[in-house]
Amino acid sequence: MYNYSVLLETVNKELQTSNLIEEPKELYEPIEYILSIGGKRLRPVLTLMACNLFSENIENAIKPALGIELFHNFTLLHDDIMDKSDKRRNQETVHKKWSENIAILSGDAMSILAYKYICSCENSKLSQVLDVFTKTALQVCEGQQFDMNFETSETVSIPEYLNMIKLKTSVLLAGSLKIGAILGNANAEDANNLYNFGVNIGLAFQLQDDILDVFGDTAKFGKNIGGDISSNKKTFLLLKALELASFEKRKELTEWINLKEFDKSAKIKAVTSIYNNLKVREFAEDLKNEYFEKSILNIENIKIPENKKTHLRNISKKLLNREY
Amino acid sequence: MYNYSVLLETVNKELQTSNLIEEPKELYEPIEYILSIGGKRLRPVLTLMACNLFSENIENAIKPALGIELFHNFTLLHDDIMDKSDKRRNQETVHKKWSENIAILSGDAMSILAYKYICSCENSKLSQVLDVFTKTALQVCEGQQFDMNFETSETVSIPEYLNMIKLKTSVLLAGSLKIGAILGNANAEDANNLYNFGVNIGLAFQLQDDILDVFGDTAKFGKNIGGDISSNKKTFLLLKALELASFEKRKELTEWINLKEFDKSAKIKAVTSIYNNLKVREFAEDLKNEYFEKSILNIENIKIPENKKTHLRNISKKLLNREY
Repeated sequence: MYNYSVLLETVNKELQTSNLIEEPKELYEPIEYILSIGGKRLRPVLTLMACNLFSENIENAIKPALGIELFHNFTLLHDDIMDKSDKRRNQETVHKKWSENIAILSGDAMSILAYKYICSCENSKLSQVLDVFTKTALQVCEGQQFDMNFETSETVSIPEYLNMIKLKTSVLLAGSLKIGAILGNANAEDANNLYNFGVNIGLAFQLQDDILDVFGDTAKFGKNIGGDISSNKKTFLLLKALELASFEKRKELTEWINLKEFDKSAKIKAVTSIYNNLKVREFAEDLKNEYFEKSILNIENIKIPENKKTHLRNISKKLLNREY
Repeated sequence: MYNYSVLLETVNKELQTSNLIEEPKELYEPIEYILSIGGKRLRPVLTLMACNLFSENIENAIKPALGIELFHNFTLLHDDIMDKSDKRRNQETVHKKWSENIAILSGDAMSILAYKYICSCENSKLSQVLDVFTKTALQVCEGQQFDMNFETSETVSIPEYLNMIKLKTSVLLAGSLKIGAILGNANAEDANNLYNFGVNIGLAFQLQDDILDVFGDTAKFGKNIGGDISSNKKTFLLLKALELASFEKRKELTEWINLKEFDKSAKIKAVTSIYNNLKVREFAEDLKNEYFEKSILNIENIKIPENKKTHLRNISKKLLNREY
């Protein structure tokens, strides 16, 4: 059994030895660039880890795992254009460093390259793996579209929000795990348990991200606190606050939301105070824990010896074990 | 053997009965829209026709053929953003009708849908079909990038230009044919003959397009004559003219190219006159005929009864609008 750091090293080694640069370089250099500026490589590690639960030999999962990392970075590349983000991992985004057209086109090539790597799995697994991958890839696009829709939508319900983050974040974690399981010869039930584990841990992780954006420690969180509040992002916290607020409080909250010009820290302070008043953090923590508990159950249900599950349990703790 | 119109009807029927609209509709409606505003459906018809050369049963090629049409329209959708085109087939382009973000994202979903349809072919052919499709799809991106590079490049050679149009236009025709051949159980040699036929007919077609843009009849061509000249597009005609021109003529030509403000019809008239003077049309016609002759040979080399080749020969004549 390989632990996280060994698998991470495997992924990074494969990335370094894969020569992705072809002609014309304007098409391929942005692909290498976005892969080179870092990232946790969580998804390909999950693929290899899931494979390793059922098979000592993870060789045949390495290229498909890289395909998933390529797909993930392709979505980041195009999301950055859509969100007009200048920075990604403290570096210039592709459309800023090159141009929007190059970012569109190299992203397109990157999604095709992702398929190329996915398709390099053994023939007997190809159809099954592609079914999961294609379904997942479409869902990620759907999640991004829902997210864009919600920006201008007056009414977003909490179930709608949870469905959006499931599509935008969770299903790719889930799909990465299921593909690894398939490549490791898991049976359908175990592959689905891993899929569900991915969905639940992804939802818990995203809820934690919503919480940390308001209540986290800047130094540890790595992003500026209150960004979601100042941009009126419809997170679980905001939606729950709008649901729970009295007439008075809702009026106060929507006034802050509708202000075109405002002092950023005053807005963050005021909205955080409303959140505290309504105890929305507790609701978010409860729901996060609910998903986390479900994910624990999903691991328990996998029919392999308990000692094989250690690395998976560690990764799930690591994902959610962030300092407040 | 099915002729062009029967195969076209098959493609259109499949398109009409495929329900592509899922939630969120903002993601899927642009996909249905761009497919609904027309197009010759040349590529899926070529896939079915190639399959039909080797097999009476073309059922299993219908969905992959549609996948190729989806891919082609995805490239148009994203090209229109990059080229800032307002109109496609006399209708608003997706990024004008919706937004640039929606055009990027629905294009992304469309390329994944293309894979979904390609992957619905029978399992025993899947790996072979995907190899051709993925290679082709990457080449189409490479062709588009070369085309963008050439816009700002001072020196484009004729071989570089021919390579660009091969990648941007020909290989998808070639890939469509090869995939059809594979699905019809052709042997490798015949599949490659069809591939090469596609490359050569595509090159001949693109050269003809360059010629018609200058020397065509507006009513028949369907585009405005001289568009390439007024936009300084580096077509075969311009590159050949720059190669052949005397010092004087080259000076005259580059002066027109460098003019920021000009009377459109005066520029078209002057540049056309230089083209006539240097007989670049004849060079283009000769090269076009050379590729056409090669494509004829490619058909001859396919080892099936001559009478089965009629529809393919017809389509190639139709494309080049010539009777032989």
